[in-house]
Amino acid sequence: MFHRVAIIGLGLIGGSIGLALRKAKAAQEVAGYDLGRGVSERARRIGAIDQAYDVLPDAVRGAELVVLATPVGAMRALLQEIATAITPGAIVTDVASTKEQVVQWAEELLPATVSFVGGHPMTGKERSGVEAADEKIFQGYVYCLTPTERTCATATSKIAALVEMLGARVRFLAPAEHDRQVAGVSHLPFLASIALVNSVAASPTWGEAGQLAANGFRDMSRLAAGSPTMYRDICLTNSDAIVSWLDEYIATLQSLRESIAGDRHDLSESFVKAQQTRLRWQASYERME
Amino acid sequence: MFHRVAIIGLGLIGGSIGLALRKAKAAQEVAGYDLGRGVSERARRIGAIDQAYDVLPDAVRGAELVVLATPVGAMRALLQEIATAITPGAIVTDVASTKEQVVQWAEELLPATVSFVGGHPMTGKERSGVEAADEKIFQGYVYCLTPTERTCATATSKIAALVEMLGARVRFLAPAEHDRQVAGVSHLPFLASIALVNSVAASPTWGEAGQLAANGFRDMSRLAAGSPTMYRDICLTNSDAIVSWLDEYIATLQSLRESIAGDRHDLSESFVKAQQTRLRWQASYERME
Repeated sequence: MFHRVAIIGLGLIGGSIGLALRKAKAAQEVAGYDLGRGVSERARRIGAIDQAYDVLPDAVRGAELVVLATPVGAMRALLQEIATAITPGAIVTDVASTKEQVVQWAEELLPATVSFVGGHPMTGKERSGVEAADEKIFQGYVYCLTPTERTCATATSKIAALVEMLGARVRFLAPAEHDRQVAGVSHLPFLASIALVNSVAASPTWGEAGQLAANGFRDMSRLAAGSPTMYRDICLTNSDAIVSWLDEYIATLQSLRESIAGDRHDLSESFVKAQQTRLRWQASYERME
Repeated sequence: MFHRVAIIGLGLIGGSIGLALRKAKAAQEVAGYDLGRGVSERARRIGAIDQAYDVLPDAVRGAELVVLATPVGAMRALLQEIATAITPGAIVTDVASTKEQVVQWAEELLPATVSFVGGHPMTGKERSGVEAADEKIFQGYVYCLTPTERTCATATSKIAALVEMLGARVRFLAPAEHDRQVAGVSHLPFLASIALVNSVAASPTWGEAGQLAANGFRDMSRLAAGSPTMYRDICLTNSDAIVSWLDEYIATLQSLRESIAGDRHDLSESFVKAQQTRLRWQASYERME
């Protein structure tokens, strides 16, 4: 499928792509680079890459495919840095959670001979880091690709073939539409979780009340434990869509609040609607898994 | 421990209390009643009660302990109905999620010879109904008791002993304080989940976006699938505390929104604070389990 692939950023996703490429023998050589001390060597030991590099341009040089699997906050500097080392005609893809900003940087910073195909695998795990890498984490999940009119069609179909090799299902979306949809189903949820935790913990009785918190609170607060850096990067690169979803959410809460304060009849309707939506979604999600 | 116990309402909690009483041989006879067709007979078959009753006063008559394990919405009518049949000197306890209103009804409707001890086990399961009953679901969890100055001390200690027999940890709280704390850690979370589901599903692109939703959305929407009737009953009997927590939550979200819209520095601080609070809470919760 590929002669030489370079994976930049060897965390959960980068490591898992490396493992999948190597197990499927889809690349003759997988080169890896990670800023973290010892990370690329550990990635090599678990079989996620063939060769660990200490110098970024060396990893990228000669690769026909470069996979950027770093946090979105590192992406701009990374694109600048690889721009001079990258082989003409190479394809670059990324796995960041927001796309419009990343695609814009890539099209601005990479040489015209290089094709960029934005990507976002809709998968994850509680654990992070290359040690948690698992070539099966993509299987059955949606993997968004966001080519633009500037992306060459061959590059897009090669990345689509890579996604299929990973066992994921390709979904093509314009970058802005991706960001808007993901802001609702992925970014709004983590902000709702963070606001919940900060609201209840601000109370002077939190020490006591926290001991009354049970499974409902556990589920609703889980996302609040995620990486603050990753969350901030997402907010910085997708602020318009996120702000608009937060406004929707606040309006929905405000209307629930009025119904509860007024013992109004439409409360049950809201609860029934949410229950039915959730049950339908859950059924399709389980079918997908 | 008890000669005759009557359990009214044989769902997950009522059934589990029955199983625990019978397995620990803590009652000579466990009588059971449920409005649902065939429910008390099924409860008898799985060993949650000794004797199934079709007529509520018959179940209650002669019992020294009556456990009310129905939804809070049924509680007022139930208290009225058992008031005439109940044996003088009996103890009544309940397991409803809100306490101030229930305690007020009980003290108003039950005869003066009867002691009411409000209770709320902080446990649960995804599945409901007597088939999901399990005597171990209380083990390690907090079980709130809300005696008032009108509750006789002997009744309170008998119910505390029952809670310990269930393997739970007694927490004494005034009814209003219970309702305020639980509104934050239990009622606000389900409303946050319902509002999230209704917000994202109101979008014309929900059909597509729902397929991008992954584990984060799954966790944050789980509570929205809960019983609309139970949620409505909780809101009706705890509206003041819930409205005040919703106001806090909306204010926190509004402030996050301003930080994101303005790319403000305090965003990271909010995320770090939420992460630390959640990690600390999780550690104490796991210790407790």
